[in-house]
Amino acid sequence: MTTRWLTSEEQRAWRAYIAASRLLEDAIDRQLQQEGGMPHLFYSVLANLSEAPGRRLRMTGLAETLKITRSRLTYAVTRLERDGLVRRENCRQDKRGSFAVLTEEGTAVLERTAPGHVETVRAALFDRLTPEQVEQLGEICTRIARGLQGEDGGAGGAAEDVPWRRRSSPCSGGSPG
Amino acid sequence: MTTRWLTSEEQRAWRAYIAASRLLEDAIDRQLQQEGGMPHLFYSVLANLSEAPGRRLRMTGLAETLKITRSRLTYAVTRLERDGLVRRENCRQDKRGSFAVLTEEGTAVLERTAPGHVETVRAALFDRLTPEQVEQLGEICTRIARGLQGEDGGAGGAAEDVPWRRRSSPCSGGSPG
Repeated sequence: MTTRWLTSEEQRAWRAYIAASRLLEDAIDRQLQQEGGMPHLFYSVLANLSEAPGRRLRMTGLAETLKITRSRLTYAVTRLERDGLVRRENCRQDKRGSFAVLTEEGTAVLERTAPGHVETVRAALFDRLTPEQVEQLGEICTRIARGLQGEDGGAGGAAEDVPWRRRSSPCSGGSPG
Repeated sequence: MTTRWLTSEEQRAWRAYIAASRLLEDAIDRQLQQEGGMPHLFYSVLANLSEAPGRRLRMTGLAETLKITRSRLTYAVTRLERDGLVRRENCRQDKRGSFAVLTEEGTAVLERTAPGHVETVRAALFDRLTPEQVEQLGEICTRIARGLQGEDGGAGGAAEDVPWRRRSSPCSGGSPG
């Protein structure tokens, strides 16, 4: 099969996307490390738990919401549990399932860290975009995410490859996956 | 200062962005691990070197192009050097500077891996977007990247915070930074 190389317009968009996503993740991680002592992913775990009924979520559902592998979530929750911000509970009905629960200390850390985080996201992203661009970004990203989750009825198989259904993830340059 | 929380439209766009970027990085890393035995960042190092005159770039310039810290680049290049894909050369004029050079083996791995990588990017992203959306994505990401690099004349200080000028980066959940 002949490779369909990117056009110059696609190339430009792709490189801009890579640059923006790396710089954005760096800025967000940096603020959260400085003010909360944790990277973005850990913060996302706390934020998602805080919005759930009883501040608890099943690990499998949480991995799906965060779009990550279960092993990566387990690593994050283990660290957060060690710091007293999250507690794990076993599910009585289902031995395979377990829950992550936000502790009071986790809630306090989240409440203290959230304003700075939102300010960083706003300064890096929303303060620079027009309302039309915010809408475009949402539409574009929803389309990409749906496609990669096999929700758009496109080329089959994608849904099988989602991170949270996988046992282990590719090693990303030494990260725990 | 009162926190300017995100509006529901901004919230929606932000969550879609996080989902899309995590799924995209996962899909890209997965293909590159399977076909090239390396994560996306390592591939980006090889790709950038392959386009440079003499297939060599100064480490500091390479970190800036990739939008990462020098310590993260050093880690990647050390691994690529160990696998014989990149070679390091010291700069005669400037003891502080050193170069990364793509080897013949690195070129071969890149040529073998590139078609599958481009196909993954195309299937995940460009095949799902209209030409207008590709243009919008490029425009949005360019604006975000410029802002985070302090190139838009906006709130000062951003340019000082870019990853490649920093000695060390925040620990991202156990990754080498």
